[in-house]
Amino acid sequence: MKELEEYIQKGEVIAPDIVKVDHFLNHQINIKLLKKIGEAFKERFHDVSIDKIVTMETSGIAVAAIVSLYFDDVPVVYIKKEKSAITSKNMLEEKVHSFTKNKDYIACLDGRYIQKGERILLIDDFLANGAALKGMISLVEKAGGTCVGAGIVIEKAFMDGRKPFEEKGYRIEALARIESVEEGIVKFKKG
Amino acid sequence: MKELEEYIQKGEVIAPDIVKVDHFLNHQINIKLLKKIGEAFKERFHDVSIDKIVTMETSGIAVAAIVSLYFDDVPVVYIKKEKSAITSKNMLEEKVHSFTKNKDYIACLDGRYIQKGERILLIDDFLANGAALKGMISLVEKAGGTCVGAGIVIEKAFMDGRKPFEEKGYRIEALARIESVEEGIVKFKKG
Repeated sequence: MKELEEYIQKGEVIAPDIVKVDHFLNHQINIKLLKKIGEAFKERFHDVSIDKIVTMETSGIAVAAIVSLYFDDVPVVYIKKEKSAITSKNMLEEKVHSFTKNKDYIACLDGRYIQKGERILLIDDFLANGAALKGMISLVEKAGGTCVGAGIVIEKAFMDGRKPFEEKGYRIEALARIESVEEGIVKFKKG
Repeated sequence: MKELEEYIQKGEVIAPDIVKVDHFLNHQINIKLLKKIGEAFKERFHDVSIDKIVTMETSGIAVAAIVSLYFDDVPVVYIKKEKSAITSKNMLEEKVHSFTKNKDYIACLDGRYIQKGERILLIDDFLANGAALKGMISLVEKAGGTCVGAGIVIEKAFMDGRKPFEEKGYRIEALARIESVEEGIVKFKKG
């Protein structure tokens, strides 16, 4: 997605593997661009019917909410990264290692919000080494849902995080696939 | 807003002053309802022009993203509740005490995302004692923005958190105003 790639290229490159996208995605949110992202995901997943969208707190939420508009306003469930002070017997948990922050967190999903057999589209802002995606899939499947696909805004393709998922048959669509970040220049995979 | 009140009444009452709205707002998100919330805010703020929407991480984000659709897709900026590992010289900070979690956090806003003189609509899911709203206003004004109003989904009106803001001339519109929570029954203010 050309326009998305241009926005990413305007972001600050903090480290060889960290590109900041605070200017349109992770702090300030460009709603007009998110609508185009929603359209693009609809195009990629036009052949699947979905019941719900599941995303990960925090930066996936706005993307998922706007993407829902292109899938008949299906409900969005966001997985929480912090245990609630109020315990619930329905809470499913999964330990996830954050690559960016280099620490573990407990991803939590209230099992009541995924019904058995529901068809789930996963949405996230980044795919890096795949730890977050693995946690999301595991929680959705524990709850009884079926992951019909994962829509990723920005994939760090040079980390090859999608490989184990594709090997297991999961379908992943990424709108911008970063091939390399060298001397502050972000390059994308073609096609 | 009648439909919103009905959803709130289906929520679990955890304590006299805490009503869980995880089923449609803070974990699972009902996008159809958020669109009606967006329409309702547009109606309440039909007379103001705004440049941006500012909200607070986490539960304000989906609301703000959908509300933006009713205000010409203006950009949304969400204030972060955690200092980024990557420091920025533009970062404005404000200590906020969370009433629900009974602890302080540092609310952060990158000053680059609010331009001097921009007209800001604040959006948040809850107004309780007003601590979060106070932090949001302070950060926006430090950055040079003008708060033209605050749109609140659920106001705990029995806590009277809006009072100091109204006394200073801020305009607050809440779509559901809880008058009391007694023996698990949520009652709303009329009109």
